[in-house]
Amino acid sequence: MVFVTRRERFSAAHKLFREEWNDEQNFDVFGKCSYPNWHGHNYILYVTIKGELNPETGFVVNIKKLSEIIKEHVISKLDHRNLNIDVDFMKDTIASTENLAIAIWNVLEPIINLLGVHLHKIKIEETENNFVEYYGS
Amino acid sequence: MVFVTRRERFSAAHKLFREEWNDEQNFDVFGKCSYPNWHGHNYILYVTIKGELNPETGFVVNIKKLSEIIKEHVISKLDHRNLNIDVDFMKDTIASTENLAIAIWNVLEPIINLLGVHLHKIKIEETENNFVEYYGS
Amino acid sequence: MVFVTRRERFSAAHKLFREEWNDEQNFDVFGKCSYPNWHGHNYILYVTIKGELNPETGFVVNIKKLSEIIKEHVISKLDHRNLNIDVDFMKDTIASTENLAIAIWNVLEPIINLLGVHLHKIKIEETENNFVEYYGS
Amino acid sequence: MVFVTRRERFSAAHKLFREEWNDEQNFDVFGKCSYPNWHGHNYILYVTIKGELNPETGFVVNIKKLSEIIKEHVISKLDHRNLNIDVDFMKDTIASTENLAIAIWNVLEPIINLLGVHLHKIKIEETENNFVEYYGS
Amino acid sequence: MVFVTRRERFSAAHKLFREEWNDEQNFDVFGKCSYPNWHGHNYILYVTIKGELNPETGFVVNIKKLSEIIKEHVISKLDHRNLNIDVDFMKDTIASTENLAIAIWNVLEPIINLLGVHLHKIKIEETENNFVEYYGS
Amino acid sequence: MVFVTRRERFSAAHKLFREEWNDEQNFDVFGKCSYPNWHGHNYILYVTIKGELNPETGFVVNIKKLSEIIKEHVISKLDHRNLNIDVDFMKDTIASTENLAIAIWNVLEPIINLLGVHLHKIKIEETENNFVEYYGS
Repeated sequence: MVFVTRRERFSAAHKLFREEWNDEQNFDVFGKCSYPNWHGHNYILYVTIKGELNPETGFVVNIKKLSEIIKEHVISKLDHRNLNIDVDFMKDTIASTENLAIAIWNVLEPIINLLGVHLHKIKIEETENNFVEYYGS
Repeated sequence: MVFVTRRERFSAAHKLFREEWNDEQNFDVFGKCSYPNWHGHNYILYVTIKGELNPETGFVVNIKKLSEIIKEHVISKLDHRNLNIDVDFMKDTIASTENLAIAIWNVLEPIINLLGVHLHKIKIEETENNFVEYYGS
Repeated sequence: MVFVTRRERFSAAHKLFREEWNDEQNFDVFGKCSYPNWHGHNYILYVTIKGELNPETGFVVNIKKLSEIIKEHVISKLDHRNLNIDVDFMKDTIASTENLAIAIWNVLEPIINLLGVHLHKIKIEETENNFVEYYGS
Repeated sequence: MVFVTRRERFSAAHKLFREEWNDEQNFDVFGKCSYPNWHGHNYILYVTIKGELNPETGFVVNIKKLSEIIKEHVISKLDHRNLNIDVDFMKDTIASTENLAIAIWNVLEPIINLLGVHLHKIKIEETENNFVEYYGS
Repeated sequence: MVFVTRRERFSAAHKLFREEWNDEQNFDVFGKCSYPNWHGHNYILYVTIKGELNPETGFVVNIKKLSEIIKEHVISKLDHRNLNIDVDFMKDTIASTENLAIAIWNVLEPIINLLGVHLHKIKIEETENNFVEYYGS
Repeated sequence: MVFVTRRERFSAAHKLFREEWNDEQNFDVFGKCSYPNWHGHNYILYVTIKGELNPETGFVVNIKKLSEIIKEHVISKLDHRNLNIDVDFMKDTIASTENLAIAIWNVLEPIINLLGVHLHKIKIEETENNFVEYYGS
């Protein structure tokens, strides 16, 4: 078993809030992240897959192919977008990094399985001080 | 003459567009940065001052004081905000990194002069691949 | 289960030595780290917690609250301090990064449990080339 | 159990190709990595060991000793070398990062066992976007 | 005057040697960089331009256009290539970082002038410890 | 004219205080940096030299030679040492990053002149948020 990780980046806007709460309640829970007119981040995404080595290529997976899959199914939908408004797989969820990691896992896992390897981890860095990791349910 | 630099960070939303252009014209010039529902960045700001060494303290400037000034006059107005909507010193300008650097220079220069040193450079990193530097007009 | 990590930093002095050894013995084992007049590092601390997602907030834990806990119980005691002299939870131990990671685990684990989540890992980078990880006994 | 990691670096040339394939086949699988006249990378190697704490030193392992072992048995053979031509432990394998990680594991594991600790992980960063991890078979 | 910098990356092989010197002389001057079978680096290139702000766009230069120019004229010729063999603008020069910076300046300067701005600096990082800057003759 | 920079690192202890001031006065000016039992940093030093290209080598200066000079005259005296106590060229000065940059300039400039090139800049990063640059008097 070898683990291979691809890093991709996207810049997006979001805010954290619940429609059914008023501004004060939202600020109590989400702080500055609840400010009404959005803010944003340079998110860094790490996709880790695991699998057996293919002795013919020396690869677990063709990382160029892996990068194309991530770009087509994830980055193209997130980059320069608003996580609360524009992203089909984030509809009806709070745009937290945790929910984003789970949603990206759910998008990528069946597609990566088709390559004959397994998705191992989704890691998202929101800022240089905060990051989230998800290994599937 | 010694140069001292303080790094500060802020996360903000913005988009690049001109009201008087239609979506196609805006996309032609600004590309993905013109998408309507905003995107955002983890901006990194470097403020460089220059001055003579104070032999009593070994400092050009007290960097804790410098940090407080940057936070009070700049970061508190930009962090978790929308550069196009929320920021008084960015009113009526395109929210480009170039304009942001000039605007921050204009805010900070008179205040830093009061410390008896000179503002030398404003540098802003928008992404890990793009940054802007401004040394005053 | 989702894993959330907060990065915090502190600058501290230390040295590695055993009182009952002479300088030569200490140098044999600890090398330059045993020099008598201290040296220091910009330590980087990563605290990783794990837990279930709260569907109301999209958080495993409020990371602002997590940061406040780390600052109050750990960073405020280590930052700009001497690990061998000033830190109550490092008394009578060698000020190695390994011992520091275990000590920080022991300080934080009961407090983080009160938040309804579990401490998963303490990681400390001492230099850009050396780091230590601890997952509890 | 505590985990200790040492980072080391080496700069090497390589290419990815199979002798029995023609240029077109190699380009189909390996892309630009198959270009005939070599390319190269600043590889970053992380060696993680695990073990019990020695209460006398506060160390799991003397990291200076660990660094010397990695330099003698791995870095001295890879640095400023060609992975396809010059490296005894890479003979007859495709010079992929995956194969390199496994080969370094096989070189280091028996030597690190002699220190009374266990090799836990070999991680190699080939570029800022691609890395591989291996935990043994 | 505002300064705008674009970062691009390329991975290449090279060695440092003079044909008319024997191996010993080459090793005396160039050390490990003269090893015969090549080595390589992940080079990081920073291209800084300077110019007046265009008030209509808030840009000095369209950084997407600048990136395309650098990729077409420089990166496409260097990436996954051998600096000594494959690169037309490095013919008959020693493949040092200094010469590479000057050669890239000479390629880019006339093209960037056509954009109505000036090339200010070429910076190349060869490793995390060594970099070169060139501002034109 | 080409500019070449070498990065070196050292870990040192220091504190900021004036003997003739009491603790309260020192804390007023120097804050946490005045704590009595020292703290420390992983300092990063960048030494930039400028000169003409030697057409025979493609070098402005042999960077291996430059690194050896910096290590012999600067790093060996600072690394794992106390800036206030152990360092001959820091005697009778406040151990600020500004003073350290000037002192390193004064040590290195005459030695680097002997190589036929000029010292251009000393840059020291004290933390990831603070750095100082000195270009000579």
